[in-house]
Amino acid sequence: MTQVTAQMSASLDGFYTGPRDPRNPTDMSSWMQGPEAPGFFRVTRWVVDAMAWRERVGAAGGEASINSEILEETFSSAGAYVMGRRMFDAGEVPWGDEPPFRAPVFVVTHRPRAVLERQGGTSFTFVTEGPERAVELAREAAGSKDVAVAGGGEVLRQVLRAGLLDQLEVHIAPVLLGEGQRLFDPGLGLGAEDGIELVATRVVAGPDVTHVRYTVSGRSRLVLDDRGASGELVGSARPEQ
Amino acid sequence: MTQVTAQMSASLDGFYTGPRDPRNPTDMSSWMQGPEAPGFFRVTRWVVDAMAWRERVGAAGGEASINSEILEETFSSAGAYVMGRRMFDAGEVPWGDEPPFRAPVFVVTHRPRAVLERQGGTSFTFVTEGPERAVELAREAAGSKDVAVAGGGEVLRQVLRAGLLDQLEVHIAPVLLGEGQRLFDPGLGLGAEDGIELVATRVVAGPDVTHVRYTVSGRSRLVLDDRGASGELVGSARPEQ
Repeated sequence: MTQVTAQMSASLDGFYTGPRDPRNPTDMSSWMQGPEAPGFFRVTRWVVDAMAWRERVGAAGGEASINSEILEETFSSAGAYVMGRRMFDAGEVPWGDEPPFRAPVFVVTHRPRAVLERQGGTSFTFVTEGPERAVELAREAAGSKDVAVAGGGEVLRQVLRAGLLDQLEVHIAPVLLGEGQRLFDPGLGLGAEDGIELVATRVVAGPDVTHVRYTVSGRSRLVLDDRGASGELVGSARPEQ
Repeated sequence: MTQVTAQMSASLDGFYTGPRDPRNPTDMSSWMQGPEAPGFFRVTRWVVDAMAWRERVGAAGGEASINSEILEETFSSAGAYVMGRRMFDAGEVPWGDEPPFRAPVFVVTHRPRAVLERQGGTSFTFVTEGPERAVELAREAAGSKDVAVAGGGEVLRQVLRAGLLDQLEVHIAPVLLGEGQRLFDPGLGLGAEDGIELVATRVVAGPDVTHVRYTVSGRSRLVLDDRGASGELVGSARPEQ
């Protein structure tokens, strides 16, 4: 059954890329020279070091590690992708004629544009009716495979907030960046008394990255507990002295 | 040899407690009724469920799980603690006559106060000369054991920023809170081109929490890589077709 999944690399302090350039917030052509790139390169370094990614982009080398296996699994389970407009803009030129997705990609944007067909199975369809519609179209395109939310953070939060995400895997890079753009922020639309509950289903200590996969249980009310006090009143599994 | 360590519980999105009450930012007596408590209770729930913590606070029951073993290890390795003033203010009354630390605690504060002696080995010494002095005093008190930074986030960031932290363990609770107080924020004093590098030394998938322990390598410049392009130029460990 098709699941809507997301696999995102982030620093331990939750940044998936460096801060936006305040002098140049929208033009992505100078992105590589701006303040976003150093943080983005750091948190995704494990990807570039992995053999599965290098094969996808036609580069040689790379490590045949558990990291590479996890990437390969991620690629092979995705039948279609949902992507934010800024991520597309940043990637359009560097990904070249044969982008690494090899599947239909649905880009959430306000700007209509004709479908872009690329080599190797990748196409980019521009969806102006919002992230929920993009997920819907991606589901239709994915067949029995999964829909993967490719990023960035804004589209991930929109999909989470809409209750559409089934599985979330965070690849935690061992670094603190201090500032940048966060995977999760108040854009989730949660108040002080609500959370989105998760269940960790797989934890893998890879070289230079920790992979934690969660099932998304959904939005739920946070509760205060009695910090163990009731254990004294209602008895215990442990003998009292 | 004494290490300076920190063990902090946080949500997957990096919050260790809910948002501060804007109407009441300093008085901690109504903390339990304010917006901080629901998030704090959620991220520390695994602690309250663990047998080792319940023993420390005199409550019965609890789970004899890997979580409990990790807590017990944390308690037994700490010879002294460094703590922020807000955490002390929030805990002073609830911790009662026999706080769970059972070791000297050095509270970083601007308000001088006489040493508080409590039962069971806990004392609170109020240090007005800053976090570095508090770490120094805690080192002297810890003997051959470790100095543990107990929290909250502000004192943790000050100790990290001063380059004094050797080991950081984050207990990641499977929840997204969306808002609250973050363990890590721009208070780390890092620009877009610098990070604090870590090395993961232990990853444990416990019930309802993921424990990731890091050695702090220190501040380092972030670098751009060539995203694998050089692999094509300089050869490869993998045979080319």
